[in-house]
Amino acid sequence: MTVTTVGIDADDTLWHCESLFRLTHQRFVGLLAEHGDEARIEAQLAATEKRNLRIYGYGAKGFTLSMIETALELTDGAVSTRVIREILAAGREMLTEPVEPLPGVEHALATLSERYRLVLITKGDLLHQEQKLAASGLGDLFAAVEIVSEKDADTYRRVFERHGTGADQAVMAGNSMRSDILPALEAGAWGALIPYPLVWAHEAAQAPVGHERYVELGAIAELPAWVDRVAAL
Amino acid sequence: MTVTTVGIDADDTLWHCESLFRLTHQRFVGLLAEHGDEARIEAQLAATEKRNLRIYGYGAKGFTLSMIETALELTDGAVSTRVIREILAAGREMLTEPVEPLPGVEHALATLSERYRLVLITKGDLLHQEQKLAASGLGDLFAAVEIVSEKDADTYRRVFERHGTGADQAVMAGNSMRSDILPALEAGAWGALIPYPLVWAHEAAQAPVGHERYVELGAIAELPAWVDRVAAL
Repeated sequence: MTVTTVGIDADDTLWHCESLFRLTHQRFVGLLAEHGDEARIEAQLAATEKRNLRIYGYGAKGFTLSMIETALELTDGAVSTRVIREILAAGREMLTEPVEPLPGVEHALATLSERYRLVLITKGDLLHQEQKLAASGLGDLFAAVEIVSEKDADTYRRVFERHGTGADQAVMAGNSMRSDILPALEAGAWGALIPYPLVWAHEAAQAPVGHERYVELGAIAELPAWVDRVAAL
Repeated sequence: MTVTTVGIDADDTLWHCESLFRLTHQRFVGLLAEHGDEARIEAQLAATEKRNLRIYGYGAKGFTLSMIETALELTDGAVSTRVIREILAAGREMLTEPVEPLPGVEHALATLSERYRLVLITKGDLLHQEQKLAASGLGDLFAAVEIVSEKDADTYRRVFERHGTGADQAVMAGNSMRSDILPALEAGAWGALIPYPLVWAHEAAQAPVGHERYVELGAIAELPAWVDRVAAL
């Protein structure tokens, strides 16, 4: 099988992201502790996020707006402006948090980039994702960067057509079954799941059963050898 | 001169945008009327936006966060949560406002797309810009869409390289001297300013003097003939 292109997810594949969201969730629950228990606050926040996803999309700015909206709803407007200020600050901190590649990322990308066209494929705030890539120092290893509003099969078809020889000769690797693996397989690509300890509820999905183009790896360090094996089939 | 590619700005070139921001500004000033006069409120909002531009980038979500922050600052935390709610609602309305092409846009794009590769080049929220393009019904006229975090000379070099034969054989058209014209000229492209009655203060800039690749047009309807003249030079 010829493999020309390897697509790689960014958040929680190349660097921590969900852990930062979880910390911000904890901070949010703490700020509203007198207005409800953790389960109630989290449920309300999840409902707000889900309702807003269609207009806000993914990323820290929309998440910050959803936290403010949730705080107003949960307290029936009785939230203090100190709490609103804290939420704004938490959102800004998410956007300016230092970025550090996860263990093994740099070596794996360097190895892959010698043999394949590497394309970063990620959702989220456009500017924030560009800034994280720049801060990570990994930018030069990628032949192209695609920041997209949604990861569905059409997205992968389009990206692998533009930066290679089509999805059929491409591998997609990432931590999200729902966003990185299932739609890439649907587009006809190979899919390598690299689990991250935390998964945002919205990204959870069942693994495909007995799919010949799917693999779950223990770490990104295993990715180059697996892609080479696919290419040698 | 060969011309292969025509880049077109979106907001205030293809459809109204700044007028919607102005309406939202007026609404914001009205909400805070008891805490300051219009000049003071606008000055504070402009300062907040400018300070946040580096982390929020362009678009309605960052603008909404900046409005909330300004309301907290202007009132020293005494703003009511009703006002915060209204600001969130105003931001959501900006993101869901119907989109209608400005007069002459459809015909001009259809004419241009017969002879040149049309590329939409715009800043702002990724998802929102995609949604506006879809809602406008103009999507099929473009060979490519580039939603970028900043419009500088490097952006135009990269985009015109990717979707054509380089900036030297490309025209950029839009309403912003600062974002659409000056950096495109710097990259070596031709620049056609199509003024819109309102200009965001951040986008204002001096017109170039005596630049042979620059023109100011009265309306987008004049663009196809001007590009044809350039191509016939």
